[in-house]
Amino acid sequence: MSTADEIDRIPNVRRFETFPKDELQAHVMELTHAAYPHDEIYGGYCSLEEHIDCPPELVYRYLADVRCLAEWTYSLRNFAPVDDDGLFVSYDKIGGKTKIFTKVVANAQAMTVDYHCAWDQGQHLWMIYLMRVIPAQLVLDKPGSVVLWTNCRHPFYDQNPRPELAPPDRKVWVGDLWPFFYGGHHVEMQNLKHIHEHRHKNGLRMGPHPERTPAAETILAGEAAR
Amino acid sequence: MSTADEIDRIPNVRRFETFPKDELQAHVMELTHAAYPHDEIYGGYCSLEEHIDCPPELVYRYLADVRCLAEWTYSLRNFAPVDDDGLFVSYDKIGGKTKIFTKVVANAQAMTVDYHCAWDQGQHLWMIYLMRVIPAQLVLDKPGSVVLWTNCRHPFYDQNPRPELAPPDRKVWVGDLWPFFYGGHHVEMQNLKHIHEHRHKNGLRMGPHPERTPAAETILAGEAAR
Repeated sequence: MSTADEIDRIPNVRRFETFPKDELQAHVMELTHAAYPHDEIYGGYCSLEEHIDCPPELVYRYLADVRCLAEWTYSLRNFAPVDDDGLFVSYDKIGGKTKIFTKVVANAQAMTVDYHCAWDQGQHLWMIYLMRVIPAQLVLDKPGSVVLWTNCRHPFYDQNPRPELAPPDRKVWVGDLWPFFYGGHHVEMQNLKHIHEHRHKNGLRMGPHPERTPAAETILAGEAAR
Repeated sequence: MSTADEIDRIPNVRRFETFPKDELQAHVMELTHAAYPHDEIYGGYCSLEEHIDCPPELVYRYLADVRCLAEWTYSLRNFAPVDDDGLFVSYDKIGGKTKIFTKVVANAQAMTVDYHCAWDQGQHLWMIYLMRVIPAQLVLDKPGSVVLWTNCRHPFYDQNPRPELAPPDRKVWVGDLWPFFYGGHHVEMQNLKHIHEHRHKNGLRMGPHPERTPAAETILAGEAAR
């Protein structure tokens, strides 16, 4: 069976040969709206894109260093290594005394940087921040970087699988914030942009600079002492 | 100077220490809307995400084979190699007799697949389709793949840099379609999804199947004969 024969029997496959241009145009017009409800755009996934006027190699290297999260995120602070396998613990100050565990999975060739995270425990890192740096010269015909950032709505956002691990009196669950991920991530993407542009423009070291709060390991010590 | 001192002097950087939680909440509420205008979401970038019930390794391998574009795209057909460096020519039937040149840049570890393309000429591949396959088990707690797809609005979409290369009588420029990229790419993402789910569910070969139209090289022969 040839390609076209087989493919054209698959429901919902729309190709030039069997779905003429005027039908495509009508269909695309139906999909294109003056405005889109929040939930249609940010309900299941949350994707952002930003141009940063700083070379892609520098942005990639910065993102791939987990300690930089203490600079450009709104609330992750006091990073300390948990093991020799790249797992770090820090506080997520948005959740009071909430511990967040983070492991970076990065690929220098593709310039992908993924943060595999979880609140409260480090065994199952299900909150995954998918990022990627693209040379802006290629895609926008100008210097600098394009940063892509996507989160996918893992079911644990809707239900905390380990509520017993929460610090006492914590009222918020990270997934309660899902509807505000676009806004929150926009703030953090702007942080990333402005930190890079400021340092690059002024010839400053890109970072990370050491965290001001000393002895991040006290988080782990606190754990061990329990 | 410590991190916090330096960072907190950079305009538009909003961090926990200097931008308290209630201010963040108010700011994020301002960024969060019931609906977003088309141009705000799809004006500068066009990002789509989709779950496909087929293992990520299969989806990646399929995307990374340039000839598969003849299956899941609406209008790219008759792929033929141009050189030994991975450049292919095909027709983009949406533009009549328009030739499109495509080179795949893929990374198997990161499962990124980028199509570097251009209409009419193959020297400057400025239309770049950035794709990435993610194991859905990691990010959605279910089998299959998540496919991310982003295009960035390169200035050539707004102005064809080489109008003299267009086939005679062509009235459309690829960039005229930018406002409809979301709709058009949605159609193609659905093609990708349904082709994979149909073949995977039924134990069929994933593809690409050979193109029905014989002798794709006639495109090049036509060129050579001019």
